[in-house]
Amino acid sequence: MKEHTVTIYDISEKAGVSIATVSRVLNNSSNVSENTRKKVLAAIKETGYTPNAFARGLGLNTMKTIGILTADSSDLYLAKAIYYFEEELRENGYDSLLCCTGYELKDKKAAIDLLISKKVDGIILVGSHFVYPDACDNKYIYGASEKVPVMLLNAEVEGDNIYCVSSDDHDSVYRATMKLVESGHKNVLYYYNTTSYSGHLKERGFRDAMKDAGIEVTERQFQFFDGSNEDIHGMSAQLEKAASAGLKFDAVIASDDTLALSAVKYAQAKGYNIPDDFSVIGYNNSMLTNCCDPEITSIDNKVETLCKHLTSILLGVLSGEEMPKKTVFKADIIEKGTTRLNKD
Amino acid sequence: MKEHTVTIYDISEKAGVSIATVSRVLNNSSNVSENTRKKVLAAIKETGYTPNAFARGLGLNTMKTIGILTADSSDLYLAKAIYYFEEELRENGYDSLLCCTGYELKDKKAAIDLLISKKVDGIILVGSHFVYPDACDNKYIYGASEKVPVMLLNAEVEGDNIYCVSSDDHDSVYRATMKLVESGHKNVLYYYNTTSYSGHLKERGFRDAMKDAGIEVTERQFQFFDGSNEDIHGMSAQLEKAASAGLKFDAVIASDDTLALSAVKYAQAKGYNIPDDFSVIGYNNSMLTNCCDPEITSIDNKVETLCKHLTSILLGVLSGEEMPKKTVFKADIIEKGTTRLNKD
Repeated sequence: MKEHTVTIYDISEKAGVSIATVSRVLNNSSNVSENTRKKVLAAIKETGYTPNAFARGLGLNTMKTIGILTADSSDLYLAKAIYYFEEELRENGYDSLLCCTGYELKDKKAAIDLLISKKVDGIILVGSHFVYPDACDNKYIYGASEKVPVMLLNAEVEGDNIYCVSSDDHDSVYRATMKLVESGHKNVLYYYNTTSYSGHLKERGFRDAMKDAGIEVTERQFQFFDGSNEDIHGMSAQLEKAASAGLKFDAVIASDDTLALSAVKYAQAKGYNIPDDFSVIGYNNSMLTNCCDPEITSIDNKVETLCKHLTSILLGVLSGEEMPKKTVFKADIIEKGTTRLNKD
Repeated sequence: MKEHTVTIYDISEKAGVSIATVSRVLNNSSNVSENTRKKVLAAIKETGYTPNAFARGLGLNTMKTIGILTADSSDLYLAKAIYYFEEELRENGYDSLLCCTGYELKDKKAAIDLLISKKVDGIILVGSHFVYPDACDNKYIYGASEKVPVMLLNAEVEGDNIYCVSSDDHDSVYRATMKLVESGHKNVLYYYNTTSYSGHLKERGFRDAMKDAGIEVTERQFQFFDGSNEDIHGMSAQLEKAASAGLKFDAVIASDDTLALSAVKYAQAKGYNIPDDFSVIGYNNSMLTNCCDPEITSIDNKVETLCKHLTSILLGVLSGEEMPKKTVFKADIIEKGTTRLNKD
């Protein structure tokens, strides 16, 4: 049987102050009288309130620090997300400790353990590489959530003390694919380099759109690039190889802007006219889309908005507020020079 | 008067084993018998060996963890450096905790304090933004070095327990500028976006080369871009504005590949022939250099080599070995399509 867990409500009652006041004490707000602060701290000690996320900010146990995990800090998108998290947290008086885990499950587990041993108040998992199709592999996330709130960016796991903020990757690729088809491209190649949770959503978006458009697709139209995410030349070469092997395609929709950029380079080397003979849509609307000529149409999944929103949910949770478990934003298709899409 | 500090030598003597063996125990190497390990641990306890960098790996005080600081994790170069550090450290059994500090001195100080409070065994400062021209502002680095070894990537500070690994930024820009001049470009513009320590070295390299080539430069030839490091359009616009205001230039040498990329876009918009009418050299040889057509000649300062070398120096220091205080690598000029340089 589970013990009764002391909550912010118990402390509020015992100290004879409002929950908002307890929350202010817990957040070290200066807007609390010394007397009130003492009453609240006394109530916390008296109730044997075990150090949890709320108590940490008091310095009873540690400082206000959030642990951030990402698989690969050199990925443009993930690096940007980290940047926004750090900035938002700092502005709200929180420090952050980041672990770059790589892609191995055991290293992810070790990093979470490390951060928890360093007494962080919450954990943010940046990017969908932390969630596995086999639920057993996600136990480490549940384990962490028993100690501190766990926030997921662009991934989804259901559970107490777990909060997810994402962009609708299925919807955005679905819409982009439909628009490509409507603009006259029937032979669309889907070019991807990740099989992560959000990677699957994107791929399904493509499949579903082609199905709804009544266009049959073969497995060869799904090109998986297995090399480094900086190897533009290798990515172009793979498209060239697929074409040489007889695959016909007049448009590429990519799971990442690097792949889209390689498609532009491929098409230009072939002498194709972009966007009329050949169209390209990337993903993330990163600076890479502005690097070539023509610039690349790309899906903007609003990383800054997502990160700010996730941070505010985390801060709310840490203040004992009721916060939404799942928040989904809609992405925008930013049209530039590599497509000529029909307007909505 | 300073107390006698217990060293690895004292422990070696007391335990009756070699320094190498003590070092193996300190590093939790599996290649030590349980008996020997016990003897060494006993000697450490007996001598009252105060927890320092060496002892930490034992779990006497904490785990094997290195603190990494960087100003901006979304910078391509810094993100890559972090990636290599994390990878190298993980392979050597060390965890890492990263703080992204932003550019404010107070936030850098707070992050170092935070990492030291989390009992890291060493600190790596990634990028030259941590070193200030006014020595007083570097006190926080000395403060940290009294507690743990401090490693600097691409920066230089002299002091006990401080180790610097860098690429010779002055030399590389000097050589690149000379080669541009020798290939027929007299009106070279220097385009930069940082006034960091390494930024100053690069600028001085340019100045010295022009001076040695007997070419007078005006201050207008030094264009400082003050905007976001992703704003390619803004960077191109600034060059366009300088040209409209009467500044003549037929080559750009840039402190960063993003600026070089914007110079390529500027020249192409003007209809200049690259590399004959207009040449461009970037810095870092990042993936951005492969994004446009022609691809960009760039200075490769070998971030991977630097990071691996710095990590091995840090691991040496933590094992009690004597390691070099200053290590300088020579950068390469990687010629691609935006120059036609004379061969050496």
